Amino acid sequence: MSNSPGSFDSLGDFRTIALIGKYQSLEIADALRDLVAFLQAQGREVLIEEGTAAAVGCHGCRTATFSRIGEQADLAIVVGGDGTMLNAARRLAAYAIPLAGVNQGRLGFMTDIASQSMLEGIASLLDGEFSPEQRFLLDARVMREGETLFSALALNDVVINKGDIGRMIEVEVRVDGEFIYILRADGMIIATPTGSTAYALSANGPILHPAVHGVALVPLCPHALSNRPITISDESRIEIQLLAQYDARIHFDGHEYFDARAGDLLQVQRSSHAITLMHPPGYSYFAMLREKLHWSGTPRH
Amino acid sequence: MSNSPGSFDSLGDFRTIALIGKYQSLEIADALRDLVAFLQAQGREVLIEEGTAAAVGCHGCRTATFSRIGEQADLAIVVGGDGTMLNAARRLAAYAIPLAGVNQGRLGFMTDIASQSMLEGIASLLDGEFSPEQRFLLDARVMREGETLFSALALNDVVINKGDIGRMIEVEVRVDGEFIYILRADGMIIATPTGSTAYALSANGPILHPAVHGVALVPLCPHALSNRPITISDESRIEIQLLAQYDARIHFDGHEYFDARAGDLLQVQRSSHAITLMHPPGYSYFAMLREKLHWSGTPRH
Amino acid sequence: MSNSPGSFDSLGDFRTIALIGKYQSLEIADALRDLVAFLQAQGREVLIEEGTAAAVGCHGCRTATFSRIGEQADLAIVVGGDGTMLNAARRLAAYAIPLAGVNQGRLGFMTDIASQSMLEGIASLLDGEFSPEQRFLLDARVMREGETLFSALALNDVVINKGDIGRMIEVEVRVDGEFIYILRADGMIIATPTGSTAYALSANGPILHPAVHGVALVPLCPHALSNRPITISDESRIEIQLLAQYDARIHFDGHEYFDARAGDLLQVQRSSHAITLMHPPGYSYFAMLREKLHWSGTPRH
Amino acid sequence: MSNSPGSFDSLGDFRTIALIGKYQSLEIADALRDLVAFLQAQGREVLIEEGTAAAVGCHGCRTATFSRIGEQADLAIVVGGDGTMLNAARRLAAYAIPLAGVNQGRLGFMTDIASQSMLEGIASLLDGEFSPEQRFLLDARVMREGETLFSALALNDVVINKGDIGRMIEVEVRVDGEFIYILRADGMIIATPTGSTAYALSANGPILHPAVHGVALVPLCPHALSNRPITISDESRIEIQLLAQYDARIHFDGHEYFDARAGDLLQVQRSSHAITLMHPPGYSYFAMLREKLHWSGTPRH
Repeated sequence: MSNSPGSFDSLGDFRTIALIGKYQSLEIADALRDLVAFLQAQGREVLIEEGTAAAVGCHGCRTATFSRIGEQADLAIVVGGDGTMLNAARRLAAYAIPLAGVNQGRLGFMTDIASQSMLEGIASLLDGEFSPEQRFLLDARVMREGETLFSALALNDVVINKGDIGRMIEVEVRVDGEFIYILRADGMIIATPTGSTAYALSANGPILHPAVHGVALVPLCPHALSNRPITISDESRIEIQLLAQYDARIHFDGHEYFDARAGDLLQVQRSSHAITLMHPPGYSYFAMLREKLHWSGTPRH
Repeated sequence: MSNSPGSFDSLGDFRTIALIGKYQSLEIADALRDLVAFLQAQGREVLIEEGTAAAVGCHGCRTATFSRIGEQADLAIVVGGDGTMLNAARRLAAYAIPLAGVNQGRLGFMTDIASQSMLEGIASLLDGEFSPEQRFLLDARVMREGETLFSALALNDVVINKGDIGRMIEVEVRVDGEFIYILRADGMIIATPTGSTAYALSANGPILHPAVHGVALVPLCPHALSNRPITISDESRIEIQLLAQYDARIHFDGHEYFDARAGDLLQVQRSSHAITLMHPPGYSYFAMLREKLHWSGTPRH
Repeated sequence: MSNSPGSFDSLGDFRTIALIGKYQSLEIADALRDLVAFLQAQGREVLIEEGTAAAVGCHGCRTATFSRIGEQADLAIVVGGDGTMLNAARRLAAYAIPLAGVNQGRLGFMTDIASQSMLEGIASLLDGEFSPEQRFLLDARVMREGETLFSALALNDVVINKGDIGRMIEVEVRVDGEFIYILRADGMIIATPTGSTAYALSANGPILHPAVHGVALVPLCPHALSNRPITISDESRIEIQLLAQYDARIHFDGHEYFDARAGDLLQVQRSSHAITLMHPPGYSYFAMLREKLHWSGTPRH
Repeated sequence: MSNSPGSFDSLGDFRTIALIGKYQSLEIADALRDLVAFLQAQGREVLIEEGTAAAVGCHGCRTATFSRIGEQADLAIVVGGDGTMLNAARRLAAYAIPLAGVNQGRLGFMTDIASQSMLEGIASLLDGEFSPEQRFLLDARVMREGETLFSALALNDVVINKGDIGRMIEVEVRVDGEFIYILRADGMIIATPTGSTAYALSANGPILHPAVHGVALVPLCPHALSNRPITISDESRIEIQLLAQYDARIHFDGHEYFDARAGDLLQVQRSSHAITLMHPPGYSYFAMLREKLHWSGTPRH
């Protein structure tokens, strides 16, 4: 994992480029059309994700499923916000394809090319001026009586939350097979460093720099005041077992969910897949954080 | 870094063993005498740290400075609390000597052999039944106009804190040479995973498992509510520069301090030294945490 | 509102006493039978709440609805935990009847007569040895297009929470008609001092002593880190309006709920009703808090 | 305590007006000169606080001590920031004189007349268009062996803080003579509603609206995680006793301090004095808070 600018030879020539837009959003139509024209003028092949094409047209390009994109494209450009990037990241995690993000509004944590300077940003990137950064995903599965009922990847977080009925759930938390505690709470967030600045932050979780190999366990409104967030190694295997009488909903990046019932077991560990974000020249994690969190200042030294 | 029980062949036979007691404490005299007799009966050589000997006698053993202990002993047994261990760890960090801790009162995070079962615990350890665990230290120095004024190691934390005069200090924080923010606060704690359950925890810092390669930056009463704790890689170099008009006191593990003045620069990074804690059989980091924080429970599955 | 022990002449002679038990709990059967025999032996009339009687029998007493209890009884003894007391308090709030609580397990914040010394405690109370304490309730209603769809009382809290679909709701908060802010969060707790040690505490809300005439507004996982809890006067009128696109569930003391939809308006203010808790001799709010929160200590002066 | 605009007949005609400037600040010279000219042109008598006059001249006005101001002036206009207002408020608390605040920079919580529209603001105020608001002060004294060693008023907070030596102090906290707990912490903030948005907020204390009759007890880095902030009635008497071995510094509004030693007793209660802030038309506590804390939004309904 490196943040230093440089070329990224293994990605080759970016001959085939996929475009993925915000779900059912017309606002990105102009940006997409500009991108298509720009890329085609350079002789590159452009694939448009089929859901995106359905919403905003395909401008004479080939449409493609996510799996086709994963197999054929050398780079995917995501146009939208962090939510669009989250979705694309999960869909493409199994492939080695790098991702770059263009944001139409305020810059996001992962969509860090501004739409006003989109073409310059993409041009730089295609010229090899970018900082590649790897981000790991979580591999989560829900087990019942030894069988896997559901599984999903998450780039930000896996959240187990009280269901409809009650105020609280009770779960047993284990790490690498060792009992940690019984948690009585609204729920628990299991967050990657990428997710540590998202939902987990609003639940009083710690900010983890992407270079930290950790996963944060952040209780939601825990009954015991000493159930503070814990960060464990990203090589640990986490198990959360829902105790008797409680049902819960388990969310994956806030996009997918599974309704669990008493006794169900949630297993979470670092995925063998990772994604590669292509940051534009001048990108800085801390600068992004500083802007997002309204931290003060300009250096004085 | 491994937690699994096993032999630790490279430490050899523990032929020479050093005993280090709580500073100026008479309560440990009986325990020390018992230890000396027990170890000598096995034909081992025993060194008693000279300060400890001055307080409780040396029982026919050789007294030794910390540096002599570091050079000659195969194992140091610390009798006291976590504070005694902190001090011994810093003093012996430059040597490869492993440390075991006997606690007279409630078990500590690092002094995890109970005094009631001290001799059995030590016997097991000498038989090779223990879990070695490495903990890293911080290497801190205070610079003024390019010169190092003070330097120290810390196993728990380095704390920069407002001095006598005012309510607040203003510092510029940099990581790996990059400007992060201007912090206006009572101060800032820079904590290792070992220190994350000490002072940093009471300042709302995150708990970091010892296997996480991270350092927590925890502001003390920050003026801006968004100045939340951040965990960065333990390979990062941290710089805290005291801005004009402010003086501050910098604490190292709460044992040593240095009075800094406006313009002084605190540099902190992972030390090249680490210590090895020898945990007794059955030791568990989470069990210790569970007891210390009164977490509920016994497993139900 | 007074905490000082003393007689409470306006309550008369406690001639008619109502017994209210934990919902569908057989564990309280013995305690209820003992209470009935004890009270009848003194020539008092005993009413048993009809749901309680259905679960554990009526032991030759008259059964009564909550409204009948409110009209006819001079005192209601609640046998159960704080949840049972919460329910009884809401049901009886419109009547002037004082409440005493017997707890079968660990003492509760409001059920502070231990079951082991139940009869002595009740005997003291009937002899006039008790501390009466008033606690106010919240009067909450949900409005849609000018009509009241639902209304309820709450002794602890009114909670508006994200519904099933999303991760977050967006509400506009007004106090006494004045716009305060747009809150993006999982939800918001509106808590009385009584409720400040319940759910609100686990959401990082402030502890409010019962003598403080305040209501706490505690955001749940707010998106903006500066959306800190605020305590306002208990004479203020609070309005929470659910903005477009969001549905929410509104909970009242965690016992009742209403499913609200975009545009619905939640109005909350101090109820004109209050309840009177009859604390046993020696009761102390702080002692209860100290035990519940595991605060250290016995006085040294 | 009322926030509604209206006349304030009991203050009479504001015939004599005192001006108090930020300590040793030349930046306010122009504003002061403009104020003097404006007020004299209306035939009002102007007093300039003697320290202010020493720094920026007296422009032909009479200089006066704070006590002379308290006795003779009908209104004091403070030109500076909240710190200047804090100081003036304590100095003038014993007199009935109302205070208005002009801020040279960003508006403060209490200095809410902008310098750009200073003369219009003051003109409105003199015409009776203002909202008077009372704020209570704390009366604090430090006792040793029954004698008062030091006493002071505080509008924001009284803070007892670890002294130079150690990391922590240990105090016994009592309210209205009742033992609450032994606190092991860096210190404790005792804050009024006015002070709840100042230092206490950065220590995770609750925001208390000025209409709440409460005082917040906010531990600083407490050793026990359950030592959460508590708000008690402003009619309570608070006692903090420094236990053996510890010295501490006690701060009053961050302007004055007293060095206490083991055994000293800090007593704090609501002062019999209060100050009256004169807010300009359109003033809103929540609007100020919203701006200061960067809360989002404009109303949508």
